[in-house]
Amino acid sequence: MTDDTQPISSPVGLVAGGGVLPFAVADSLIARGVTPVLFALQGICDPQGVGRFRHHWVSIGHFGKLCRLLHAEGCRQLAFIGTLVRPALSEIRMDLGALRILPRLLPAFRGGDDHLLSNVGRLFEREGFAMVGIRDLAPDLLMPEGRLTHAAPDADADLDIVRGRGLLAALSPFDIGQAAVVIDGHVVAVEDIEGTDALLKRVARLRGEGRIRARGGRGVLVKAPKETQDLRFDLPTTGLRTVEGVATAGLAGMATVAGHTIAADLQGMIAAADRARVFIVGLPA
Amino acid sequence: MTDDTQPISSPVGLVAGGGVLPFAVADSLIARGVTPVLFALQGICDPQGVGRFRHHWVSIGHFGKLCRLLHAEGCRQLAFIGTLVRPALSEIRMDLGALRILPRLLPAFRGGDDHLLSNVGRLFEREGFAMVGIRDLAPDLLMPEGRLTHAAPDADADLDIVRGRGLLAALSPFDIGQAAVVIDGHVVAVEDIEGTDALLKRVARLRGEGRIRARGGRGVLVKAPKETQDLRFDLPTTGLRTVEGVATAGLAGMATVAGHTIAADLQGMIAAADRARVFIVGLPA
Repeated sequence: MTDDTQPISSPVGLVAGGGVLPFAVADSLIARGVTPVLFALQGICDPQGVGRFRHHWVSIGHFGKLCRLLHAEGCRQLAFIGTLVRPALSEIRMDLGALRILPRLLPAFRGGDDHLLSNVGRLFEREGFAMVGIRDLAPDLLMPEGRLTHAAPDADADLDIVRGRGLLAALSPFDIGQAAVVIDGHVVAVEDIEGTDALLKRVARLRGEGRIRARGGRGVLVKAPKETQDLRFDLPTTGLRTVEGVATAGLAGMATVAGHTIAADLQGMIAAADRARVFIVGLPA
Repeated sequence: MTDDTQPISSPVGLVAGGGVLPFAVADSLIARGVTPVLFALQGICDPQGVGRFRHHWVSIGHFGKLCRLLHAEGCRQLAFIGTLVRPALSEIRMDLGALRILPRLLPAFRGGDDHLLSNVGRLFEREGFAMVGIRDLAPDLLMPEGRLTHAAPDADADLDIVRGRGLLAALSPFDIGQAAVVIDGHVVAVEDIEGTDALLKRVARLRGEGRIRARGGRGVLVKAPKETQDLRFDLPTTGLRTVEGVATAGLAGMATVAGHTIAADLQGMIAAADRARVFIVGLPA
């Protein structure tokens, strides 16, 4: 994992994808006296959410326009925040600035999803911008270490967590699987390109179909970043839906790596976990 | 992988689970002059299929009865053949012979699925029987090496196969995942306790939902035994349904480890693959 953090200078540019995370980061920055300028991705960023902040609308592929706007706004630092379905290169309409760097842009589309973002980040760095990440911008949105809930993992759950972390470490070089479900020592399912919510739904269905014999309240969702992951671009993200998914899947709880996982709405997550009597644990990195 | 093969002495006992495999093995034995005696698992083995062979019905848990029948039939060697959903210990009704070995039976239910079968196998070995597997009994049911179809993997598919094998090797210590789908270098999904057919259905659905951007006819299903697997008890199995699943998932083909994977109805598989223009490749072990 690339693990340096950088001090943030105001204003900072946020290329805002989908979901609420760009706005949570922007709020966190403002609370600490830093001005965010959002560059909202057309068709992806929520127009209502972005309205509260200084912002410009940009299209993927308008690399030249984005660079000009960043200069005009005085942003020296830049972050990609929010969800973004990997676009097909053929779907992207490029402006002149993008076409100019096309020979470097094409190779960026090879390799796994984290490579796409870090490769595109490198193109901005060549233009003189510094790429930063959530860990620099809003450390308050990261999962803290330790047990956060009334419920706590028992000895079996602790073993499940160890097994899950081992599995995710082994999967790490293959650019897949930031999450797995382990029940009573058995790896039941591994996250694929559908993501964590779909993984938990799959486990809930397998339980419903009687394919998982363990009784309810056993097993753990384990999440960890890939070892090759550039943490500025792609942190594993958890939120309320993760907690609900863990409860519906009949698991005992969830364990994610502290400081290396986003916990969107942590207080809401803890309250939901306590209601459902599942645990949330932040693991030492 | 435990990789020894043993000569077969007649008659040989086959504990027959679900599916057609026990009958295919029995036919293969008879064709080579060996008499099989089938011990059909009540509620699991197909009554119609087993009728063609010398057989007895037994229940899981009737360890004592099975040992007596094996002695009475003169079987010195024994194999578990066919599908078997991992039973919960609490669902098994034991006879006296099973209760007698209960202290050794209980630990057999710990650990992954392969450990269950090899642990139970060890109990039969303590009673003087030799455990054998499909590779001893019916080598003609194993996947041969090389390309079997008109279609052949291109250079990209070859790379997908290498990546898939690397992934499965990394997963091997975790007792999950004998199969993965790799498309254009991306690991798209990993088999979980649902098995290969469900994995291929998942990939077909992801493609239908536009989550997989690669065009049809790209990507490979890669199957390999776990390195810790005792090949007498649990070989990865492929059949007509696997070929149909590969075609429906829009993959270029499938690659499995030759000699370490069962190919039930190989001629039917090849014909179906040629119709669907997908490849089947047996990889060197």
